Amino acid sequence: MPSAAQIPLAMLLVFVAAKLLAEIFERLGQPGIVGEILAGVLIGPQVLGWLAPSEFLRTLADLGVMFLLFRVGLEVKASELMKVGGTALLVAVAGVIAPFFAGWGICALWGEPRLESIFTGAAMVATSVGITAQVLASRGLLDKRASRIILTAAVVDDVLGLVVLAFVSGLAKGAVNYLSIGLTAGLALGFTFLVARFGTRTVRRVMPRMHANLRLAESEFALAMTLLFALSVLAVFAGVAAIVGAFLAGMALSETAEGRVTDLTNGVAELLVPFFLVGIGLHFDLSAFASAGTLALTGVLVVAAVLSKFVACGAGALRMGRTDAIRVAVGMVPRGEVGMVVAQIGLNLGVIGHHIYGAIVFMSVATTLIAPPLLKLAFASPTEMERKIVRLG
Amino acid sequence: MPSAAQIPLAMLLVFVAAKLLAEIFERLGQPGIVGEILAGVLIGPQVLGWLAPSEFLRTLADLGVMFLLFRVGLEVKASELMKVGGTALLVAVAGVIAPFFAGWGICALWGEPRLESIFTGAAMVATSVGITAQVLASRGLLDKRASRIILTAAVVDDVLGLVVLAFVSGLAKGAVNYLSIGLTAGLALGFTFLVARFGTRTVRRVMPRMHANLRLAESEFALAMTLLFALSVLAVFAGVAAIVGAFLAGMALSETAEGRVTDLTNGVAELLVPFFLVGIGLHFDLSAFASAGTLALTGVLVVAAVLSKFVACGAGALRMGRTDAIRVAVGMVPRGEVGMVVAQIGLNLGVIGHHIYGAIVFMSVATTLIAPPLLKLAFASPTEMERKIVRLG
Repeated sequence: MPSAAQIPLAMLLVFVAAKLLAEIFERLGQPGIVGEILAGVLIGPQVLGWLAPSEFLRTLADLGVMFLLFRVGLEVKASELMKVGGTALLVAVAGVIAPFFAGWGICALWGEPRLESIFTGAAMVATSVGITAQVLASRGLLDKRASRIILTAAVVDDVLGLVVLAFVSGLAKGAVNYLSIGLTAGLALGFTFLVARFGTRTVRRVMPRMHANLRLAESEFALAMTLLFALSVLAVFAGVAAIVGAFLAGMALSETAEGRVTDLTNGVAELLVPFFLVGIGLHFDLSAFASAGTLALTGVLVVAAVLSKFVACGAGALRMGRTDAIRVAVGMVPRGEVGMVVAQIGLNLGVIGHHIYGAIVFMSVATTLIAPPLLKLAFASPTEMERKIVRLG
Repeated sequence: MPSAAQIPLAMLLVFVAAKLLAEIFERLGQPGIVGEILAGVLIGPQVLGWLAPSEFLRTLADLGVMFLLFRVGLEVKASELMKVGGTALLVAVAGVIAPFFAGWGICALWGEPRLESIFTGAAMVATSVGITAQVLASRGLLDKRASRIILTAAVVDDVLGLVVLAFVSGLAKGAVNYLSIGLTAGLALGFTFLVARFGTRTVRRVMPRMHANLRLAESEFALAMTLLFALSVLAVFAGVAAIVGAFLAGMALSETAEGRVTDLTNGVAELLVPFFLVGIGLHFDLSAFASAGTLALTGVLVVAAVLSKFVACGAGALRMGRTDAIRVAVGMVPRGEVGMVVAQIGLNLGVIGHHIYGAIVFMSVATTLIAPPLLKLAFASPTEMERKIVRLG
């Protein structure tokens, strides 16, 4: 194959597979996002073998989830998130503790070594905000109270996940440096809080003046991209994920950005988000099915992963009423790419074996596939049902 | 540096440097595109050394120029290009012959080996349609007759450049297969002509029906992306550059695509085109300045590269009147990334030495930097002058 064809061919394959399966799922009344992830499973090494994970695809996937969260941030006001901060904190903390001990406990009961069990617990902790955010955004639900709680809790979750990962990595290496973990967590929380608290105000003051003075074409979009990349870099140095920075950048711009910035951002997101979703599917691994024992453990882990998040996060949000508590509980279920990253670190540290790695990856993909249809159900309200009936009639 | 920061950091660096220098150049009354290329020179290995060419950046640059030409195609009707086909063919052929013999002759007179001289001629042939197209599009000049001639001639030029490259590569390997070159050229021309001739009609028939039947969100954009990547892949297999396929895809959609497709495409292009422009600058190489002899040869080659294209293409378009002939002549001058690719192939084949490589790269960058201000002058019309005066007043 001519090497010049590689890039457009990979683009064609990923994009068409994602959109084809999304279309099929939409026709079956299911969320298209599930189809896009399954497209990755289908063309990936385990089924058709047309495409394997590569540096090129990983880069586009990373950019895709960055733009996904930037786009979501553009639709969310920081002040609205601050209002639900207390509940979100409770949801996040409960949603970290329960899955951690559930995963640890199950593996310990199964007779797995202690470190491997703890690492499995750590991999159960993180929430993939990307999946839930994409479902909520595509259905126009970002302004709901439950959506705001989910987004805030997912951001806090990222920081807590970092602490858990630092702790278990320390255990694996033989020494946990509590001071260093505390400082890291403080820096991460401080960065996130400061940008969320003062970002919008700063942008509102600085941006219009800069925009007015620039001669550049599409200068507002150029400024938005600059903020997006700058906060993503700073986020990583502060210890949180780049996508948290991307989300904060979007949120800081949410009150000033014009329709043009949203349109241009949507273009990038429409092109690149499928690479993020297909990328999750590409990592799907059948080694969890290698033996009956592993298969059983995987099944138990999937059930525990769903239930522990659902019950703990639901309980954390209960004071918002049952409807919102269920919505929040479901929204925190998907582990997506974050669970896989923890599994990969465990594998690299030599702490977890290949069968546990397979089980965690399967759990990550499974929780990610379960969440969108459940979210659809949880957010189906009478008014929406009415609209559907009107559309059909 | 945390590896998670690498992607956003590279994005930040390239994007901000490009836009900063574009702004400075706009303020100096110069085309911003020149600033974006110089940004690459500035942050590249020869000056600040903040960034070196990498796989990641090359991928984004390749996607950037693909979207650049797709966007240009969206604004151009195939039927309009067909009308100027005869003149464009003349421009393209004259614009290939003159620079080829100029480059060959100069190197031969300079005492360079025969093969090296012929290869230098080949590197002088290709026109970088991306640079000219970007200048014309950003100034809203794509509907001018001269612009249409330039675009058509540049596409033909790509096929002719392929033939020349196949010929000199054959010479370098010891055997020129004329039959194979003829077949390749026929396939490339046939593909380009067929898609240009029947693409719009086919799309007009098929697209609205498909669009109406899809449940997918942003389904028109999804269809447009599918056509873009599919024609880019087919173009490579037919023997032309992926960007020719991208241009043909845009053109096929130009009569049916709605504003939404254009907006979303613009988003991707706004983000990625700077990577293409900075990428050209990153390859800037000072080895052309290694000795006084090489420096002199480089200078002569740059002058010959500009004059040979200018005179030959201008003569080819002379029947359109002097104004249009000058516009066309200037538009064909930039060699951009295409000249560099030929130089790279020559280096890999062991046919050209490092000093000639440096001279060709310098010639490519120099012609690319010269063209935008000249284009601005050539297209400045009385009405535009008036508008400028009004804006200043």
